[in-house]
Amino acid sequence: MENAPAFALDPRLAAGSDAVAALPLCHVRLKRDARFLWLLLVPERPGLADLRDLAPDDRTRLWREILRADAAVAALEEGGRRPDKVNVALIGNVVRQMHVHVVGRFLNDPAWPGAVWHHGVGPERDPAAQGRLIEGLRGRF
Amino acid sequence: MENAPAFALDPRLAAGSDAVAALPLCHVRLKRDARFLWLLLVPERPGLADLRDLAPDDRTRLWREILRADAAVAALEEGGRRPDKVNVALIGNVVRQMHVHVVGRFLNDPAWPGAVWHHGVGPERDPAAQGRLIEGLRGRF
Repeated sequence: MENAPAFALDPRLAAGSDAVAALPLCHVRLKRDARFLWLLLVPERPGLADLRDLAPDDRTRLWREILRADAAVAALEEGGRRPDKVNVALIGNVVRQMHVHVVGRFLNDPAWPGAVWHHGVGPERDPAAQGRLIEGLRGRF
Repeated sequence: MENAPAFALDPRLAAGSDAVAALPLCHVRLKRDARFLWLLLVPERPGLADLRDLAPDDRTRLWREILRADAAVAALEEGGRRPDKVNVALIGNVVRQMHVHVVGRFLNDPAWPGAVWHHGVGPERDPAAQGRLIEGLRGRF
C-alpha cells in the first residue's frame, strides 16, 4: 500500500467548519453557519464518491457513525431547544469527495421546511457558542 | 401486537410514483418524474420519522436496502446513459413518514449540480419507459 494515494480533506469541506472528532472511519466537522446544527462526516479514505465505492467493512462503519451523529445532533441544544428534525444526506454533486450531511433542523430555521442546500451560507455562530456545541458533541461521540 | 398501529403508506409518497419491490423492510417506489431516476424507500413500520426511531434490526435492514438501491440506480440506463452520481437523503420535513430518497443524477439534468428538492414536479415519464425501468430495477433487488 506504499503507493496508495493519501487522503486529504477537500478544502471546501474544511472551510467554514471546525473539527469535532475523528471516528474509526470519518472526520466529523461542525459548520459555523449559525442557522443550523450542521455536521459533516467525511470518510478518511481517498477516492470515494458514491456509497458503492466503500469497502464492505467501511460501509458498516459509515452507517454506525451516521447513527451516532444523528443521535448526537438530536440531543444538542441551541438556544435551549433541541432540533425538531434531523436531515441526513449524501449528495456530493459539487464537492465530489464523499461527505455525509447530518443537519439538525428547527421549525423556525430560515430554510424550514425546505432542504438546506439552496440557502447559501449564513452568518457564523459566535465562537464561544460554537465551542460549547463542539464540547457537547465530543461527549456524545 | 394486536393493538399496534398499522402501517399505511402516506398518500403523498404514493402519488406520482409506482411500486417497484417490497424488500424485508422497505417499500420501493419509482417516481414518474422524467427528469431523474428517483427511488423512494419507505420502511413498512408505523410511526417512524428519524433514524433513531428504528429498532436495531431495522437499522441494519435499512442500510442494506439503501446500498442495494444505490447499486440498482447506478446500473440503470436512461436514454442509453447511466447516472453520473447517486444522491441519498432522509429529510422528511414535509412528509414526516420515514422515507429515503435515492436519486440517479445526470450532468445535464435540470437541477444539476444542485439538489433535487427545490425543483417542483417535472413531466411524467412515458409509461412504457417507466415500465422498462421498473422491470430493470426488479431484476436488481
